[in-house]
Amino acid sequence: MPDSYLTQELQPIMTSTEPKSTVPKEGAEQTQQLQKEKKRGIFQWMKCNVCRAASFISGDMREFGEWLKGHSVVFQFIDWILRGAAQVMFVNNPLSGLFIFAGLILQNRWLALNGFVGTVFATISALILRQNRGAIAAGLYGYNGILVGLLMAVFSEKGDWYWWLLLPNMFMSMMCPIVSSALASINSKWGLPVFTLPFNILVCLHMVATGHYNKYFPQVLIEPARSLSNITWSEINVPLLFRAVPVGVGQVYGCDNPWTGGIFIVSLIISSPITCLHAVIGSTVGMLSGLALASPFQKIYDGLWGYNCVLACIAIGGMFYALTWQAHLLAITCAFFCAYLGSAIGNVMSVFGLPACTWPFCLSALTFLLITTEIKDIHRLPLSEVTYPERNLKYFKTIRKAEEADLTDVQT
Amino acid sequence: MPDSYLTQELQPIMTSTEPKSTVPKEGAEQTQQLQKEKKRGIFQWMKCNVCRAASFISGDMREFGEWLKGHSVVFQFIDWILRGAAQVMFVNNPLSGLFIFAGLILQNRWLALNGFVGTVFATISALILRQNRGAIAAGLYGYNGILVGLLMAVFSEKGDWYWWLLLPNMFMSMMCPIVSSALASINSKWGLPVFTLPFNILVCLHMVATGHYNKYFPQVLIEPARSLSNITWSEINVPLLFRAVPVGVGQVYGCDNPWTGGIFIVSLIISSPITCLHAVIGSTVGMLSGLALASPFQKIYDGLWGYNCVLACIAIGGMFYALTWQAHLLAITCAFFCAYLGSAIGNVMSVFGLPACTWPFCLSALTFLLITTEIKDIHRLPLSEVTYPERNLKYFKTIRKAEEADLTDVQT
Amino acid sequence: MPDSYLTQELQPIMTSTEPKSTVPKEGAEQTQQLQKEKKRGIFQWMKCNVCRAASFISGDMREFGEWLKGHSVVFQFIDWILRGAAQVMFVNNPLSGLFIFAGLILQNRWLALNGFVGTVFATISALILRQNRGAIAAGLYGYNGILVGLLMAVFSEKGDWYWWLLLPNMFMSMMCPIVSSALASINSKWGLPVFTLPFNILVCLHMVATGHYNKYFPQVLIEPARSLSNITWSEINVPLLFRAVPVGVGQVYGCDNPWTGGIFIVSLIISSPITCLHAVIGSTVGMLSGLALASPFQKIYDGLWGYNCVLACIAIGGMFYALTWQAHLLAITCAFFCAYLGSAIGNVMSVFGLPACTWPFCLSALTFLLITTEIKDIHRLPLSEVTYPERNLKYFKTIRKAEEADLTDVQT
Repeated sequence: MPDSYLTQELQPIMTSTEPKSTVPKEGAEQTQQLQKEKKRGIFQWMKCNVCRAASFISGDMREFGEWLKGHSVVFQFIDWILRGAAQVMFVNNPLSGLFIFAGLILQNRWLALNGFVGTVFATISALILRQNRGAIAAGLYGYNGILVGLLMAVFSEKGDWYWWLLLPNMFMSMMCPIVSSALASINSKWGLPVFTLPFNILVCLHMVATGHYNKYFPQVLIEPARSLSNITWSEINVPLLFRAVPVGVGQVYGCDNPWTGGIFIVSLIISSPITCLHAVIGSTVGMLSGLALASPFQKIYDGLWGYNCVLACIAIGGMFYALTWQAHLLAITCAFFCAYLGSAIGNVMSVFGLPACTWPFCLSALTFLLITTEIKDIHRLPLSEVTYPERNLKYFKTIRKAEEADLTDVQT
Repeated sequence: MPDSYLTQELQPIMTSTEPKSTVPKEGAEQTQQLQKEKKRGIFQWMKCNVCRAASFISGDMREFGEWLKGHSVVFQFIDWILRGAAQVMFVNNPLSGLFIFAGLILQNRWLALNGFVGTVFATISALILRQNRGAIAAGLYGYNGILVGLLMAVFSEKGDWYWWLLLPNMFMSMMCPIVSSALASINSKWGLPVFTLPFNILVCLHMVATGHYNKYFPQVLIEPARSLSNITWSEINVPLLFRAVPVGVGQVYGCDNPWTGGIFIVSLIISSPITCLHAVIGSTVGMLSGLALASPFQKIYDGLWGYNCVLACIAIGGMFYALTWQAHLLAITCAFFCAYLGSAIGNVMSVFGLPACTWPFCLSALTFLLITTEIKDIHRLPLSEVTYPERNLKYFKTIRKAEEADLTDVQT
Repeated sequence: MPDSYLTQELQPIMTSTEPKSTVPKEGAEQTQQLQKEKKRGIFQWMKCNVCRAASFISGDMREFGEWLKGHSVVFQFIDWILRGAAQVMFVNNPLSGLFIFAGLILQNRWLALNGFVGTVFATISALILRQNRGAIAAGLYGYNGILVGLLMAVFSEKGDWYWWLLLPNMFMSMMCPIVSSALASINSKWGLPVFTLPFNILVCLHMVATGHYNKYFPQVLIEPARSLSNITWSEINVPLLFRAVPVGVGQVYGCDNPWTGGIFIVSLIISSPITCLHAVIGSTVGMLSGLALASPFQKIYDGLWGYNCVLACIAIGGMFYALTWQAHLLAITCAFFCAYLGSAIGNVMSVFGLPACTWPFCLSALTFLLITTEIKDIHRLPLSEVTYPERNLKYFKTIRKAEEADLTDVQT
């Protein structure tokens, strides 16, 4: 039975279509009713099949992954790559990955190529290092690779189609599983995921190792602010502010094209509407924080205030905590904190000529995951049980019910 | 029985006043002696009552806290706030907190208001997040809030009574329990406290997120030294050097008024003379280190070399280690190390336009708490047993005696 | 029986010389054979004695250490100091230490004096703090001291024979065991060594606390690159590139004299040829990485790309991992990663006026030690079993055999 969020809600309907109607009844009235039920049945059958198809492509597409196991290694590998591309947004779904690559190609083909190379080499490196096969198949060794590839291309000053860039790209992508594995050894003491820390470390490593004044791999010049930015509220462009929401989602992959951001949002909704919702909330919170902290407007329009909040809001809102309304509020708080942190880290990193990358997301999400509280409805899931928000919620309800049953047993 | 340091030493006297004298004796001689004893008894009774009153306000005023529990929530809340204000110096005592607020008002009323707001919102946030009630009642969620409030006001370039500042002040104060809780999850693996790390993180976050060139919340301009400072030993002002000792204590709360520092010293002596002694030693060590490392004199006079050493010296000297003479020496070493570290961190932070805050204290004290040694008299107390130096020492002696008893049992 | 790498391989020969030949045989033929065997025996006896002598000075000279225990404390202390000097390269051998001091004196006598003072005071401080006696005797508290002493002298702008420098040198050396002990408390949670982290922390502390513009202890001016360095491939000096290999080994101790580097290489080969081999490989990898990342040639010639890679390659190649060919490949990968990291950290630190010290080595080696993998031949040794590569390998083979025996037992 597929465990998708779609089937989950539609199961009562689906079971109601089961052949109670086949019980024979006498007389014309019964025939009429039978006819009716049959008609309804066909409708239900259609609806149900749509559901099944939808459920097949939603969630983590586990069935698809299982089905692939019997097939060619090449197809499996492509599946892993696509899942890796989507895992940046915590989505374990090859179809979402396909959409994401489509969005990247729409943005810039050179960028997409670099992202692809990064994912491939990170996954190959994980295979060579014999990392956990299940984690590789879930794309958990690819998502840092795609980000390394994309962002190294974005921040290279040599512009597009500078083929030499693929060399450090491959090297750094292949380092991803090493850094991931090392960080996982540390973070596992607290049951924490590594998020995009390997990407942050490796891209910053590459950028600061070469720097702006390098002959082979010069980086875009980033400098700290040295004067007061001119902010006039009357000059604000409201449509661009609204456009900043999808752009913010796109900036997770370093894309400033709003259509690309839109495609990414669609790719999220396929797998998990809760994730999608929190992505949009996060991007909005980031935009508002930018206004509140007197950021230059262009930075807000470019979605640079949004992408960290997108990731932080997804991580806290339903992914690693079960989605109760308390967790939802916590996710929004985390997004605000992340926006503040984003501004701070951006300023600190600019001293070294570095961008903020997704450090703000990593640090704020890790902080919010480390909280201990006596509120029972803020329930952090064990890492091994984390899948996607809808299923996490189901899991949480199951164990909550089991606990309550235990309590009543004790009381009686 | 109150466990204060006062009663502890005076208990033998107090028990000697108990009615041995009531045993009847025959003859005039006896009557005379009875008279004498009665007279001594009254004197002792008075002395004893003074002791009891003193013991009631010294130490951690646990009795007062217990007594409050039956009363209005408002009074309890005020108690928590006052304890929070004093906990910056590791003092769990509402009366000390009252003195500290008095000192702050003497320094600057706008500062005091910000500190108050910070403490209140940090405590409220801890209540909302349902943190441990005992810890809240001990002020352990307030002390980061007061520092956040004070220091954000100190480093704001908009000057006093810029009311908008209260907004980020509230936000950052409310973040305190979140960061505290997250750091406690990490530090508890090594049995370490979080010290003022949440304050350091959040104030630096705010300052670097906005920076000097911000329209709404500009920060004071802090820049790295770019030239040799002119130091002429003949120009040194010895009285100002002596004044630097109380000023250094005051700088823990960002106050440069020596009278305020003096009030803080008095507030320490109320609760624990050992704490007070180490505060003064720490401030002196900091001042000497400043001279040794060729710091500009003005920085020394302003107590900027002292405040970290004050905290470090208190923490190691009797608070987290039982106060043996070895621990006392360790505390002085730690104060010197902390002064060195203070200069280093100050220079590093200035690159980002940030002050050193109390990072030097946190890092040096954590380092000295992580030491493992075969010296038995350097005994780190488990976090749950830490109260105040006098009682920590009593606890240490108890378990030492128990150990010795065990040993002799085994030998015989 | 000495456990040196020499005896290890030669034991079969040595045992073959044992008196099988004493079994009496009749007739002239037998006498002739006896004569032959006797001759061979003498040759073997000589060879064996050379081996024994060699084995005595190779490896960790445990026998010598044991033998010293019955002698004067002064000799023991000198043994600890010499071992401390060699432990920078993970070598626990007083003879290597002697060579290293010789190399230092060849480089610069003032430097050598500072290194000696650092080692002595670090060891004394460890004794005062009652650290583990076995660790002190192995020089594990001295190696940070020697580096602190050397590098503080190297980076002081006051030049040679500025006697006041000995004061901070002593203070910082005496802090070494404290920082070591604290870091060990943290790292032991993951079974990691502290490497040269205490040295890195303390030298950076001293340098940034005083800075370039200090009256008493000014540091050499280090500034970030502000323009494109001029690199013309035709100007490359190949002999200087080859010379960079021993210079890179020498730079571990801050020495740029190639002869000093050569002496250090000899000191390594005495104790462990595997260590020596990896040192040379590491230095070569560093040099190549410098070329690949378009570094100014002078930096490469000066061995500044090599020293971190030397240490990283030794640590991974046989010291903390058993030397299988997979571990060997991992060591080379680590050296490349370390070179990249070295450039990055160098640029970051230059913002604060600091050199890279051995941070790149520490961070890259720790990362590579934290990897978890399903490859069985990448076997990290428990810290308590780490001695030197040849013996580590023996230990690994022993437990591998025991495991296989267990497996076959289960199968049959």
